[in-house]
Amino acid sequence: MSNGTTSRRDQIRIAAEELFRTRGYLATSMRDIADKMKLSGGGSLYAHIAGKEELLWEIASDAIEAFFAAQMAVLASDLPPVEKLRQAMIAHVTVIMSRLDAAAVYFDEWRHLGDARREEFAARRDEYEKRFELLIHAGVACGALNAPDERFATLYALGALNAIRRWYRPDGRLSPDQVAALTADAVLRGLIG
Amino acid sequence: MSNGTTSRRDQIRIAAEELFRTRGYLATSMRDIADKMKLSGGGSLYAHIAGKEELLWEIASDAIEAFFAAQMAVLASDLPPVEKLRQAMIAHVTVIMSRLDAAAVYFDEWRHLGDARREEFAARRDEYEKRFELLIHAGVACGALNAPDERFATLYALGALNAIRRWYRPDGRLSPDQVAALTADAVLRGLIG
Repeated sequence: MSNGTTSRRDQIRIAAEELFRTRGYLATSMRDIADKMKLSGGGSLYAHIAGKEELLWEIASDAIEAFFAAQMAVLASDLPPVEKLRQAMIAHVTVIMSRLDAAAVYFDEWRHLGDARREEFAARRDEYEKRFELLIHAGVACGALNAPDERFATLYALGALNAIRRWYRPDGRLSPDQVAALTADAVLRGLIG
Repeated sequence: MSNGTTSRRDQIRIAAEELFRTRGYLATSMRDIADKMKLSGGGSLYAHIAGKEELLWEIASDAIEAFFAAQMAVLASDLPPVEKLRQAMIAHVTVIMSRLDAAAVYFDEWRHLGDARREEFAARRDEYEKRFELLIHAGVACGALNAPDERFATLYALGALNAIRRWYRPDGRLSPDQVAALTADAVLRGLIG
């Protein structure tokens, strides 16, 4: 595939991500995506991508791999359990803040994938989230965290982290680093008490 | 309006809420709602309701009033600031857990309202959320909470509370009271540290 083609494909993905977030997957047509890119019609998109669900799948897969990559770097470190959890949380929200459009697909629009892909996505996301549960478990096991219900603690932590995508704006008062640190610290304090 | 008519209208609302949550507002037709109610066709619904956006508005308005009513009961109490905040958070998540379908409209599907109603809804929700900020401010002012950034603290708290609708199931391991108390306490600890 030539560089030109790769770049056009990326442009399509970026336009689709934004439309999927702002209008939702169901309300977005291939024509809308072409219009956003100022192409003459939806038809020319099909030289680059098989269809709308293909785009949804590409965005969802790409997002989950970004979360895994960020998490992996932390898991590979030598940090003590609670600091590892803290860094994993910071890495997680940093991915969200740097890819707000893709995050909308990761959290909401993925449910419009076809059955097989939807199951594959859900299984991969469960695998990713399970590692947070293991980090919390390690923190409890070494006595640094006090989370009598580790499953609840995991759901609470991920929910609190994921919620920032609803209000974080790149041009807002707080920098991504500030939001990440404030959020991770608030979650951690919630798991210590 | 006769009781029979009222009851049919409630049945329509309940069917619509469930479809709006599971499929999304855009992917739900009046015909789908009629089918769910095992009516012969979408046509007969129009004797009871002006249209799909009317239903969305009714569900959204009803949900926000439920949140306000639950909050009002707590605000009217004589509790000290932090306990008042804790009770307001418990009241908030209790409304979510008791009305998961309507919560999907309150948090997501409301954006498909027409412009005027969408603005009205957003303003009313801001008003509701502002009261959480005032409760947090009162807790900081009396020295019981330590939230240097009260706006962030409010967004964090509401985000963490609202996230439970993504995993809470009525037939789950934890009772609504347990989920409410665990969540409110985790958020509060996050605002103390």
